[in-house]
Amino acid sequence: MGAASEKNPLYAKVEMTLASEIADAVLPPGSQLPSEDRLIERFGVSRTTVRKAIENLVVRGLVEIRRGRGTFVAQPKVIQELTELTGFVEDMQALGRNPTARLLDGQLVPADADVARQLAVSPGSLVMRIQRVRLADGVAMSFDETYLPREIGEKIVTHDLESEPIFSLLEERYNLPLIEAEYRLEAVTATPTVAQALAVEPGNPVFLIERTSYSSEHRPIDYEKLHYRGDLIRFITRLSRRPRARS
Amino acid sequence: MGAASEKNPLYAKVEMTLASEIADAVLPPGSQLPSEDRLIERFGVSRTTVRKAIENLVVRGLVEIRRGRGTFVAQPKVIQELTELTGFVEDMQALGRNPTARLLDGQLVPADADVARQLAVSPGSLVMRIQRVRLADGVAMSFDETYLPREIGEKIVTHDLESEPIFSLLEERYNLPLIEAEYRLEAVTATPTVAQALAVEPGNPVFLIERTSYSSEHRPIDYEKLHYRGDLIRFITRLSRRPRARS
Repeated sequence: MGAASEKNPLYAKVEMTLASEIADAVLPPGSQLPSEDRLIERFGVSRTTVRKAIENLVVRGLVEIRRGRGTFVAQPKVIQELTELTGFVEDMQALGRNPTARLLDGQLVPADADVARQLAVSPGSLVMRIQRVRLADGVAMSFDETYLPREIGEKIVTHDLESEPIFSLLEERYNLPLIEAEYRLEAVTATPTVAQALAVEPGNPVFLIERTSYSSEHRPIDYEKLHYRGDLIRFITRLSRRPRARS
Repeated sequence: MGAASEKNPLYAKVEMTLASEIADAVLPPGSQLPSEDRLIERFGVSRTTVRKAIENLVVRGLVEIRRGRGTFVAQPKVIQELTELTGFVEDMQALGRNPTARLLDGQLVPADADVARQLAVSPGSLVMRIQRVRLADGVAMSFDETYLPREIGEKIVTHDLESEPIFSLLEERYNLPLIEAEYRLEAVTATPTVAQALAVEPGNPVFLIERTSYSSEHRPIDYEKLHYRGDLIRFITRLSRRPRARS
């Protein structure tokens, strides 16, 4: 609201100049922005104006504030289509990135209420939980928890889950074609556990996808909680307007 | 991964008991969870176990930690379909909620690089920017910034934008049918400006939707930045698997 009465406010000039220096890689990804004092001097504006400009750059995802360390030019976000059911390896390959995985854990655990409902098993019955960090070009992008019905899960964990995608194993090895999935999308902040897995600070933004994938006859076969680093990814989709109901 | 070797860890019992008390409204939305000390005493477990259980409840969105005040049972999230192009008023009415709006600002501003690209105008040329807080049953759900091409924007702001949806004005009043939109979805944290508009703490999770809506002949007519309170909303969609390409 602040500068609501100005037509071409000073912060917009500062913001636009810095944004174009970022676009032109005069300020490359990962580099530190000049200090507030340097920017005040350079542009001949107030501290409030510099802060407003930087706040807008944060909102636009062009820079990020690392507490106690300064403001840095952000890595450009991965832009991922959200238009059909695909796995991490397929997604990253489509973007020309090299997908890898780090297996943290794979064991039978009792299904909590959510897991039980999604996999259509009784609460407390054993299901396979696989925890992995998914990387793109060596950068941790997502902390994934995969829940599988016990029978298929015990087969899946016999494979090398750092190199074999679970979707491929289900479809090609065990003849369980994936037909469709329900996606639930949320913005959350990183808990200590998620933050540690992703090597970010607790409280950082996380794009959480809960996905239940179904095989033939609407049989739920794979329930995942995908915690994506919010600062690294943006999802994109297109939706049509329904034919207008005129009143 | 702490309790990795336990088959039915204690924290899962604490978590499941509290989750079912929340589901049964023994612990109703908005109520404060008993203190760590009370939970330690009640369940006869360690502080680490209580904290792990609460962390899992946070991840599941069932409780939220308000810094310096304690842990509270979260409001159930609004579950909103993300399957066709709809506006806030339509969305909330479909959910049986009462949508209202608070107009913060409406003025011509120079288009920054993003706005210019989305609305297909020259950077720096004037566009209409409308800032509103959107409420459901009186609760601020979203801080919306709407950018419109100047000509149509100057007409739109002559209306009462606290009661008339912009989509309805475009379609019914100005004969600009909306055909489709591109959605860009991100998890971010609230900047001071967004936090103030939504009456939350800076750093809280925000589900950011950038949406460009097109009228006939793929003419961009409305570019929005919708900052939804991450703790209040979850989006849901279904995607199909593409026919398998066998190698």
